[in-house]
Amino acid sequence: MNSNIEIKHIEKSKIDTVDFNNLPFGSVYSDHMLTCTFKDGKWQDAVVEPFAPISLDPSAKIFHYGQSIFEGMKAYKDADGNTLLFRPLDNCKRLNKSAERLVIPQIPEETFMNGLKALLKVDDAWIPTKEGSSLYIRPFMFASGNGFHASPADEYKFMICTAPSGAYFAGKVKVLIEEKYARAANGGVGFAKAGGNYAAQFYPTQLAIEKGYNQVIWTDDNTHEYIEEAGAMNIFIRINDTLITSPTNDRILDGITRKSIIQIAKDLGINVEVRKISVTEVIAAAKSGELKEMFGAGTAAVISPIAGFGFQENDYDLPELEKPYAALLKKTITDIQTNKAEDPYGWRVQL
Amino acid sequence: MNSNIEIKHIEKSKIDTVDFNNLPFGSVYSDHMLTCTFKDGKWQDAVVEPFAPISLDPSAKIFHYGQSIFEGMKAYKDADGNTLLFRPLDNCKRLNKSAERLVIPQIPEETFMNGLKALLKVDDAWIPTKEGSSLYIRPFMFASGNGFHASPADEYKFMICTAPSGAYFAGKVKVLIEEKYARAANGGVGFAKAGGNYAAQFYPTQLAIEKGYNQVIWTDDNTHEYIEEAGAMNIFIRINDTLITSPTNDRILDGITRKSIIQIAKDLGINVEVRKISVTEVIAAAKSGELKEMFGAGTAAVISPIAGFGFQENDYDLPELEKPYAALLKKTITDIQTNKAEDPYGWRVQL
Ligand SMILES: Cc1ncc(COP(=O)(O)O)c(C=O)c1O
Ligand SMILES: Cc1ncc(COP(=O)(O)O)c(C=O)c1O
Repeated sequence: MNSNIEIKHIEKSKIDTVDFNNLPFGSVYSDHMLTCTFKDGKWQDAVVEPFAPISLDPSAKIFHYGQSIFEGMKAYKDADGNTLLFRPLDNCKRLNKSAERLVIPQIPEETFMNGLKALLKVDDAWIPTKEGSSLYIRPFMFASGNGFHASPADEYKFMICTAPSGAYFAGKVKVLIEEKYARAANGGVGFAKAGGNYAAQFYPTQLAIEKGYNQVIWTDDNTHEYIEEAGAMNIFIRINDTLITSPTNDRILDGITRKSIIQIAKDLGINVEVRKISVTEVIAAAKSGELKEMFGAGTAAVISPIAGFGFQENDYDLPELEKPYAALLKKTITDIQTNKAEDPYGWRVQL
Repeated sequence: MNSNIEIKHIEKSKIDTVDFNNLPFGSVYSDHMLTCTFKDGKWQDAVVEPFAPISLDPSAKIFHYGQSIFEGMKAYKDADGNTLLFRPLDNCKRLNKSAERLVIPQIPEETFMNGLKALLKVDDAWIPTKEGSSLYIRPFMFASGNGFHASPADEYKFMICTAPSGAYFAGKVKVLIEEKYARAANGGVGFAKAGGNYAAQFYPTQLAIEKGYNQVIWTDDNTHEYIEEAGAMNIFIRINDTLITSPTNDRILDGITRKSIIQIAKDLGINVEVRKISVTEVIAAAKSGELKEMFGAGTAAVISPIAGFGFQENDYDLPELEKPYAALLKKTITDIQTNKAEDPYGWRVQL
């Protein structure tokens, strides 16, 4: 399987220095990484090697033209010590969709999957077993070719690094519905996991944090009337017993958690509507008491319940429910991911 | 002046390997570079050092979240061998505007200017003297701090590299007026020189190139009705004897060449209008014969005359004029830049 993947083992593992009972999110790195270079018009052999600095010319296009994309995945251990992934091929396909839009050469699915498996095998001991923890997996690609000319590079790196991680958010979040700044343009790169999309969000998010919120909810850049998504999560809104989420488009990331939650919710008998939802409708529902829940959905945060939101200098609180959909959906998806429940969908992949 | 800038000289210059009569654009690099690191909450001392690879952790945020900005400037030699810059402080101020939007710490103007001057002094021999050539200067800043968390980094690099360069475009260009893809969102980062803005343009530009054009002319992302700018140039359109250019806004880069050309054109007695200009108006003027010229304006290409444009499967040619404004304006600004003419504006800075 990993026939053409060379493995260069680390001399001495750093795993003893890590406290697996107090894991931060995405800031402790496993011993190894996968590297694959695109040059002379083709992908070279992938190699699993010790996690170590990357050396790049100052003229490498990554520093100048933002030609970079990434993915976010998680690996889990079940009670029997099996390593589990969740819909990994979907991440590979999305990475390649992002690659196409950013004019980065697509990575063969075989290289992605075999590379990932080889890496997880070598760093098996780094996959946390504690409930709520997981191995966060970061595949990424960037322009390593050189030149001060705003055009695609002639050399790229595809890499995968991993980080044993705890929870992304601690507890419920308060969000601000954005009415001035925007995350993505029509006909832009919002649907891609392009690096530049994230840096563009830092400033409005910082302003929101200064006002006491944790996250921004993005609206369309034209009217600011329609709810799109959050920084790294798609958004679900429950009005009475209907769960609503925006359709994806060229501004919104087609989240794997989002589409899984839509499926699971439907199968749990919840009425799900995939349609545009306006800020006006959400405010009206908040005022009438029909707004029951809002939550974000994404790989890093899984399901992140929203405690309340701000809009135009007003704050709206969400009720505390006894049996929120968010908790039910989170448990259902997490149980599938970690092999505590049957997976009727074939989403779980055991290594 | 350069009191706190340490200089580490290269052991052996590479200048003998460079053919100054056949310079490409931005792909031959001078011996030295300037580096300044932001850490522990402040900018450390800047250093001029040999041009050499940068070493970064794979988790450095530049690889994941596109937190990067840049500038483009040129240095010239006059007949007496003096080194000349053009409105350099404006580049520094714009870099800091970009920095603010991307949540990158601003670089003190003193560090920028003193660092630039120290670098140009050390690499004085790299400044081309041949007409049409110049030393292209690339100041840039990026997130060198680590973490798989979409939030601003805790460490940054400010660097300046230089590249002796020939012309950016050879001859006139054919452009395509974009009606599907977009460069920037309302409330986005289009006004900043953010790395991600450029990668986002590669795919639509590639499609345009495949159709036989050199460049895309961006329109607003909402209606695609208004002309905004080109990939790395602002756009001027001459209808009869009036020169029109779009006002800048949060989607359009406030080009230094653009504002200089507006001033120069006015002082040459040309009627200049800074106003929104629609594609409909341009097409109508092309059909009636009132459309006389279109050209791009930017540091890299200076003034780039447009031979014709495409829109909705139709091609429109521009007339060959005997005395185009483009040539007059290019000569006037270039003469000021290279000290062949008086500079009534105080734009030229002699080192
Ligand atoms: C902008 C954005 N939206 C949504 C998501 C959620 O996508 P997924 O569920 O595939 O992780 C992410 C994170 O990956 C994201 O970055
Ligand atoms: C998007 C964009 N527009 C316009 C320009 C022209 O600006 P300036 O004249 O300051 O070089 C540039 C290049 O710098 C650019 O990148």
